[in-house]
Amino acid sequence: MTKVGIIGIGHGVFGRRSDATVQELAFEAFSAAMKDAGLTREDLEASVIGSVPEYHKQRSLPGVVQEYLGLNPKPTWLTEVACASGSAAIRTAWMSIQAGVHDVVAVIGCQKMTELTTAEILGLMGRVGEVQWESVFGTTFPAYYAMFARRHMHEFGTTHEQLLQVAVKNHFYGAKNPCALFRKEITLEKAMESDEVALPLQVYDCCANADGAACVILAGEERAKEISNKVVWLEGMGCATASMSVLRRPHMVGLPSAEQSGAEAYKMAGIGPDDIKVAQVHDCFTIAEIMAYEDLGFCKKGGGGKFIADRQSYIGGKVAVNVDGGLKAKGHPIGATGVSQTYEIAKQLRGEAGERQVPGADIGLTHNVGGIGQYCFVQILRRD
Amino acid sequence: MTKVGIIGIGHGVFGRRSDATVQELAFEAFSAAMKDAGLTREDLEASVIGSVPEYHKQRSLPGVVQEYLGLNPKPTWLTEVACASGSAAIRTAWMSIQAGVHDVVAVIGCQKMTELTTAEILGLMGRVGEVQWESVFGTTFPAYYAMFARRHMHEFGTTHEQLLQVAVKNHFYGAKNPCALFRKEITLEKAMESDEVALPLQVYDCCANADGAACVILAGEERAKEISNKVVWLEGMGCATASMSVLRRPHMVGLPSAEQSGAEAYKMAGIGPDDIKVAQVHDCFTIAEIMAYEDLGFCKKGGGGKFIADRQSYIGGKVAVNVDGGLKAKGHPIGATGVSQTYEIAKQLRGEAGERQVPGADIGLTHNVGGIGQYCFVQILRRD
Repeated sequence: MTKVGIIGIGHGVFGRRSDATVQELAFEAFSAAMKDAGLTREDLEASVIGSVPEYHKQRSLPGVVQEYLGLNPKPTWLTEVACASGSAAIRTAWMSIQAGVHDVVAVIGCQKMTELTTAEILGLMGRVGEVQWESVFGTTFPAYYAMFARRHMHEFGTTHEQLLQVAVKNHFYGAKNPCALFRKEITLEKAMESDEVALPLQVYDCCANADGAACVILAGEERAKEISNKVVWLEGMGCATASMSVLRRPHMVGLPSAEQSGAEAYKMAGIGPDDIKVAQVHDCFTIAEIMAYEDLGFCKKGGGGKFIADRQSYIGGKVAVNVDGGLKAKGHPIGATGVSQTYEIAKQLRGEAGERQVPGADIGLTHNVGGIGQYCFVQILRRD
Repeated sequence: MTKVGIIGIGHGVFGRRSDATVQELAFEAFSAAMKDAGLTREDLEASVIGSVPEYHKQRSLPGVVQEYLGLNPKPTWLTEVACASGSAAIRTAWMSIQAGVHDVVAVIGCQKMTELTTAEILGLMGRVGEVQWESVFGTTFPAYYAMFARRHMHEFGTTHEQLLQVAVKNHFYGAKNPCALFRKEITLEKAMESDEVALPLQVYDCCANADGAACVILAGEERAKEISNKVVWLEGMGCATASMSVLRRPHMVGLPSAEQSGAEAYKMAGIGPDDIKVAQVHDCFTIAEIMAYEDLGFCKKGGGGKFIADRQSYIGGKVAVNVDGGLKAKGHPIGATGVSQTYEIAKQLRGEAGERQVPGADIGLTHNVGGIGQYCFVQILRRD
């Protein structure tokens, strides 16, 4: 099996992008990645789209994107696993290269979320749980994560201030990211005063829907080395699932799928949590980032609140987490998020992250969760 | 690279399945395939779902299906490329095995199409073309295929009787398939009298939406031989795309993506069209089957009308096509169709197709089209 490396990266601005269709968003990220890699369309063998189709007026996105990018007649396919769709796209592209089926593949996470009406969006968001038995009881996203937060507070004494310190950190770094939706720092006081959503979660505990796209170009070892002198390698790839219903899980203070996919990725890469210098974790809600610290082994179970309070996830702490602003400040175009996470880690490992650069970053991690943890994808990346 | 074989197959009844949720449909096909293979859940390493999400009330299907089938915490992902989603799922599973990432993978095509209102369905169907520039002009599915039919008639003298002879054949065989939606033969006279849809296409030129599921279980060569003594091998796998807009294509009497994916699959398998004994082609409309004869090389371009008139696609003709009833008589649960095609060819190559068995079937082909040909997937299968 060949090693697979990232040879090009591109990222568009996340936000309310009424200036662009979804294929135009895809083009923005794709053309930046192609320029970064120094490739022409002829060098590519296939594309993979990470996206959640229901949010688009346009049906069957890969065909429209493929045509708009000028990539016909090359193969394309879309992967969907809710908010982890971008990482699933990278995983299938990685497999296609390991299989020897393709050698150079573009992965494009792209998503429009603001072209539907609020009622339509709420209708979709309200059906994230199992619709036959669970959604009917009002288990929306914030409601699920509020239950995780309550239980974490109950079992470990985690405080709401600690939750919101995650938001303060992510806004602090998001302010330095030109692609972020919210480019402004916030104070803990301001966050504590924000409107209630599903208690204990307030507005600043929640990420925001956004339009956006990101792209990474992958190649097999030999071709990657020919094309680029700053390849970032996919060294560990973990993937696991868990029940839709949290009632059927062993506990409510973490995500079993994250623990399992993390363990699988560490094993494949032959490293452990202490080796990670920079990580992108799926902070759809502040409690999700705290649980990720624990599920990924950055601290022990229950220690996540103290971990952020001690600034261990800032640059200069144990592991720099979400220093691009995370979902919280960058915005969360659901199909694009996983690819955006990989983009950021590649940028960090290449030492090109500017104001938000983590010194000495040589090994990084992405943690991309779908739904309420029914899917988790973990990648370990290493610079050449 | 390892060879990849089909070691288990299962198929549910297609139709208006108000008795079952989509995960229950998936279970029906999955449990039949597992029984056929003689496997337990522990033997599986991953599942792939072929489906088009927009038609379901349930969001993010793979999580719900994975839980219902009892497959947590194994990896799962969904592929979407419109009506070719099932073949894309098989393709990614095939790659995952060739890559050495997984060794035994279940592929489940599953789709509910009857739980939405007619208005909702029409809203979705009406947005199959490019929504910014093309759908607004009324380019629905029947309208697109009516244009193909008109042009084919104009260039080659194909008659509407010839188109409807495809429907007569597919209903003739569909009557012998216990999983088909329409289990009744029709006459050419009856078909000619059916209501107009988009002229020249009438009701009997068009396939019908349906609920349904099919499952195939794939394994790497060594494991496949351990498990099964009737393995059917995936020997050629072609995939190509074309522009959404037919205006940007070289002609309107066939699908360039089908020609290209067919050529790729033949090349990989080291065979040609004359070697194919049995084929499943994507007869979403009667003209689509006629174009498929030509695109796949069963006859020369323009000869498709004569090919069916001469009964060359019946059992006993040059190549038996859609002898399970095809999309026309079997029904078209869009995400399930590609997997259903592979199921049927595996059944034929194993000599287990009963009343509809093609004598001496040793090599078969599937041809699964997405949209109006913006995707095509062709598989060549061979028995051990």
